[in-house]
Amino acid sequence: MSNQSINIQFPDGHQQLFTKGVTLTDIAQAISLGLRKKAIAGRVNGTIVDLTYPILEDAQITLYDASSKEGIEVIRHSTAHLLAQAFKRLFPTAQFGVGPVIENGFYYDINIAHSLVPSDLQQIEKMMKQIVRENMQIHRKEVTREEAKRLFAHDKLKLELLEGIPENDIISVYEQGDFYDLCRGPHVPSTGKLQHFKLMHVSGAYWRGDSQNQMLQRIYGVAFATKEEMKDYFVFLEEAEKRNHRKLGKELELFMFSEEAPGMPFYLANGQIIRNELESFLRNLQTIYDYKEVRTPLMMNQRLWEQSGHWDHYKENMYFTQVDEQSFALKPMNCPGHMLIFKNDRHSYRDLPIRMAEFGQVHRHEFSGALNGLLRVRSFCQDDAHIFVTPQQIEDEIALALKIIDHVYQVFGFQYEIELSTRPDDFMGDIKLWDQAEAALENVLHHLGYPFNVNKGDGAFYGPKIDIHIKDAIKRSHQCATVQLDFQMPEKFDLTYINEQNAKVRPVVIHRAVFGSIDRFLGILIEHFGGAFPTWLAPQQVKIIGVADSHQDYVQQVMRALQQEQIRVSVDNRQEKLGKKIRDAQMKKIPHILVLGDKECSNESVTVRKYGQSDLVNIPLRQFIAEVKQEIVQKELAGRNEE
Amino acid sequence: MSNQSINIQFPDGHQQLFTKGVTLTDIAQAISLGLRKKAIAGRVNGTIVDLTYPILEDAQITLYDASSKEGIEVIRHSTAHLLAQAFKRLFPTAQFGVGPVIENGFYYDINIAHSLVPSDLQQIEKMMKQIVRENMQIHRKEVTREEAKRLFAHDKLKLELLEGIPENDIISVYEQGDFYDLCRGPHVPSTGKLQHFKLMHVSGAYWRGDSQNQMLQRIYGVAFATKEEMKDYFVFLEEAEKRNHRKLGKELELFMFSEEAPGMPFYLANGQIIRNELESFLRNLQTIYDYKEVRTPLMMNQRLWEQSGHWDHYKENMYFTQVDEQSFALKPMNCPGHMLIFKNDRHSYRDLPIRMAEFGQVHRHEFSGALNGLLRVRSFCQDDAHIFVTPQQIEDEIALALKIIDHVYQVFGFQYEIELSTRPDDFMGDIKLWDQAEAALENVLHHLGYPFNVNKGDGAFYGPKIDIHIKDAIKRSHQCATVQLDFQMPEKFDLTYINEQNAKVRPVVIHRAVFGSIDRFLGILIEHFGGAFPTWLAPQQVKIIGVADSHQDYVQQVMRALQQEQIRVSVDNRQEKLGKKIRDAQMKKIPHILVLGDKECSNESVTVRKYGQSDLVNIPLRQFIAEVKQEIVQKELAGRNEE
Repeated sequence: MSNQSINIQFPDGHQQLFTKGVTLTDIAQAISLGLRKKAIAGRVNGTIVDLTYPILEDAQITLYDASSKEGIEVIRHSTAHLLAQAFKRLFPTAQFGVGPVIENGFYYDINIAHSLVPSDLQQIEKMMKQIVRENMQIHRKEVTREEAKRLFAHDKLKLELLEGIPENDIISVYEQGDFYDLCRGPHVPSTGKLQHFKLMHVSGAYWRGDSQNQMLQRIYGVAFATKEEMKDYFVFLEEAEKRNHRKLGKELELFMFSEEAPGMPFYLANGQIIRNELESFLRNLQTIYDYKEVRTPLMMNQRLWEQSGHWDHYKENMYFTQVDEQSFALKPMNCPGHMLIFKNDRHSYRDLPIRMAEFGQVHRHEFSGALNGLLRVRSFCQDDAHIFVTPQQIEDEIALALKIIDHVYQVFGFQYEIELSTRPDDFMGDIKLWDQAEAALENVLHHLGYPFNVNKGDGAFYGPKIDIHIKDAIKRSHQCATVQLDFQMPEKFDLTYINEQNAKVRPVVIHRAVFGSIDRFLGILIEHFGGAFPTWLAPQQVKIIGVADSHQDYVQQVMRALQQEQIRVSVDNRQEKLGKKIRDAQMKKIPHILVLGDKECSNESVTVRKYGQSDLVNIPLRQFIAEVKQEIVQKELAGRNEE
Repeated sequence: MSNQSINIQFPDGHQQLFTKGVTLTDIAQAISLGLRKKAIAGRVNGTIVDLTYPILEDAQITLYDASSKEGIEVIRHSTAHLLAQAFKRLFPTAQFGVGPVIENGFYYDINIAHSLVPSDLQQIEKMMKQIVRENMQIHRKEVTREEAKRLFAHDKLKLELLEGIPENDIISVYEQGDFYDLCRGPHVPSTGKLQHFKLMHVSGAYWRGDSQNQMLQRIYGVAFATKEEMKDYFVFLEEAEKRNHRKLGKELELFMFSEEAPGMPFYLANGQIIRNELESFLRNLQTIYDYKEVRTPLMMNQRLWEQSGHWDHYKENMYFTQVDEQSFALKPMNCPGHMLIFKNDRHSYRDLPIRMAEFGQVHRHEFSGALNGLLRVRSFCQDDAHIFVTPQQIEDEIALALKIIDHVYQVFGFQYEIELSTRPDDFMGDIKLWDQAEAALENVLHHLGYPFNVNKGDGAFYGPKIDIHIKDAIKRSHQCATVQLDFQMPEKFDLTYINEQNAKVRPVVIHRAVFGSIDRFLGILIEHFGGAFPTWLAPQQVKIIGVADSHQDYVQQVMRALQQEQIRVSVDNRQEKLGKKIRDAQMKKIPHILVLGDKECSNESVTVRKYGQSDLVNIPLRQFIAEVKQEIVQKELAGRNEE
């Protein structure tokens, strides 16, 4: 090998000699013009670098185009710079904070006196496109700390960032035309590579996320590899917005919030009907699986939370009050209460498993900025259960818990993925017990034939766990159910049972939730169904509309017949046109609209319009009632997502 | 009329002349020896006095014997003195606090180093009876403050009480033999009048009820007019003790308490089943009556409670916590949350009445000493409703509310009495509106044909109310349901609706609760039914016992058949004798015990033993299922109270 040659190894193992100092652009060009054109950045011996990075030694390399995760990240980062450059052209006095990559795009925090409005974003975007057309080369320059200070003398935010760079780190600056930014890189080789982006909105953000600091303006944008991906993203956004549970919650009168209790939902009549259905669905299922429902106080003495470990690990998220001059905490979890119930009685191995369930209202503090409708609240109802088992019962009980979860998720049409999280570094307890427990969880999943991913080291400190991630109708993932083994809680509360050998031994506790939080689950359901709930959940199951006044007797007869069968029904007898009544009922996403006129009166039939279907069907009243009852009892999904 | 004569008028209007200075004993004697023997005390010109009180002027008088309320009170008070006298004979160093009359008896607070035990009470009671046999005269003596101080120099408690007597009040002392007490009186003429008493128990009590003061020992006793009354009382006590909900709560595993949350019940599986049944019973009824169920947060900003008036009137009983550096209160009532929901929307007269219901968990502080099982707790679930009405709808809505209450109470077999409480002195709002509202309430009660008592001036400051007092199976009275008119809350929250004239006007709010507190109602039900719940409420509805192992298949078949019908059933398959299994099931007050042997297996029948009935009935399985289902659906009471 000549002194001037270096050996380049490609991802497929293929090797080739190049001149020392060769760049990734040169290498791409050497392979094909197409590759050079598509390349965005690359990896050299494990480090992601610009295409212009000169390679000085033997290296393993990878070239990234926009379709790779690494490539699109570089594009998003470069688009943030593009935004800053365009912004500076329009507002030369602007100072810049940080401009990182986020999911689907990027943001940039900017200090400018002018309050940005949507039309500003349009202007900026226009200027960004202008700079794209100018196709400016993007250069990396490594500078001394002194040079950097001189370069950013006009921008106190960048100077602060500069101070944060450790003494011996390389300081690099990226230049494109008249614009330069303090940045580690890498970036695309030229602005012409940035094609599919859009500025989304602007919001306030404290400098460095600290509310003691000044408020900056944060511009959010998205960027994609292709036009299609960007189009798909906006279709998704539109669909998500149509399904937004806060919007639908208002339109369908499901819930409200008040500034008198931020993060704590008020359920209106329609929302409460759904909550009650969800609760009674799970309650009935739990009865079949021999769960015992209990109810424990909402607040308990602080010393109990010290005993359980919540005080050490969770007190920042807990609310406290004074009772008889002692500190009490509102429960953030139900576990300690259930441990007290278990401890209230003596137990033999013959009593186990004990499956203790509670629909428990818990309170957990969240920053006000983090609150998000029903999806992130400060008070919610957990469908919690603690199963007290002998070590030998672990597998069977985990399997039963997964069976309930599977049953419930199928009812809602949720696909789901399973993750097994194992022993973390800061685990507590006996390592042998951990190995045994992890093996038990794996065994169960294997026996049940469930595919699952292992999240090594991601278990709770008290035991390994299985998390279930559901996919909603527009493919978003939500973690809801969880099944966790706990060896610590029985220790902390000194729980015992008498085993076959008449010895006092510790039970194992399985924590289990199916919905997780009923509130959050309802939020997910609203978006999953786009507000068009299956009949069993729909607040209004049937709306009756009479064609004329002469049909009112029959309308009343039909209503009574439906009420008798506990079907949630109402009559629209406003002085409005038939068409408007039908449209209004559809707006409320009522699963069945009955239109009753002469024909229906004469032969005791109903004409049904199912939600999301345009065809009308005339069937005998009796048949309709039987069908609706069947739909409710079977919890049928039919009809949803057909809008 | 001679100077030495005074005119005495009797309650029947009859008048007679007596010599000035005549005593009530003299007057009674003048009428009949029997009357003199029966007389306990009397009233002279409105003041209750001893029989030895010399009458110096014309007077209206009444003589009281033991059968009168006044007479028995004097007896109870004198029995307290009798206790003190006996005590002092046994423990000469004792000092005495107060010794008032209470329901059915009296107590005396005593300062003595010796810790009193039940055998002490027997000794004291024996000594009391001795003093009764001695039949000591009881004398009243009026003394100067100096004399009194000298008399009680040895008793610092009495000296403190003496200091509390206003400067110009008469200070009187009652003497009986060697014993004297500082006392306002009156008393029976001699200890021989005290015949039917019993010392009950001893407990600790702070001097003057202040926990900063020293702890005294309080001896409780009862006293009655006749032997029969006392016997009845002890029968009642025994019956009440058998039904004591705390005792039954433990035996039937309904609930528990923990020192980690005093006054906040933990519902065990059996108790939670009953709670759920109660809730769903009322929920279904409310659906029929077109109530809308909502759910509001458990805590809200303090400013809301200032607006509602709870801050001014109720803050001592509220729990507070900090949220985002602001003070939040745990809700003691649901009203403000419901007002916010009403305010969340615009309303027309066509939308009213709006019947808003919530099973709302509220927290109210109670002194730890006042806590009493489920009957007095610090956190409970109210079956609360607020009905928003136009003034014209008040009568109809009150009638509907009373109809639900009547329906519910009939289901439990409760007799009840109605009380109408009217405008208090510190009423708020327009007096005309009050008159109108009171008339409306009276009208409704008249129309419904309900007898009722008027409690003049006992309404809430915000409106008049109807309280319902139920009588339980052993004739104790409990106030549970309430229907209250409220003109103030709509004012305070600026609630409006648009009336027929298109004007913004205030609705009226009706507060309504049926159970009142589900927790307390459950406590009452436990005692009312003595733990033997009707089938629809019973945690376990059927217990199946197989005669031999060979019957186990049939046992399982019967169990599955019952489970299929949602009947709560379990099998006793312990290795125990048949008799013991039956006894255990009876101890748990399970409404139906099925004993299955050869005969039952062979003809698909069951032999049923209903709770509280000794006869066994053999019927076909099908018939049994149908009968139990009927019992549940009809919420039949049959079988209760037949133990």
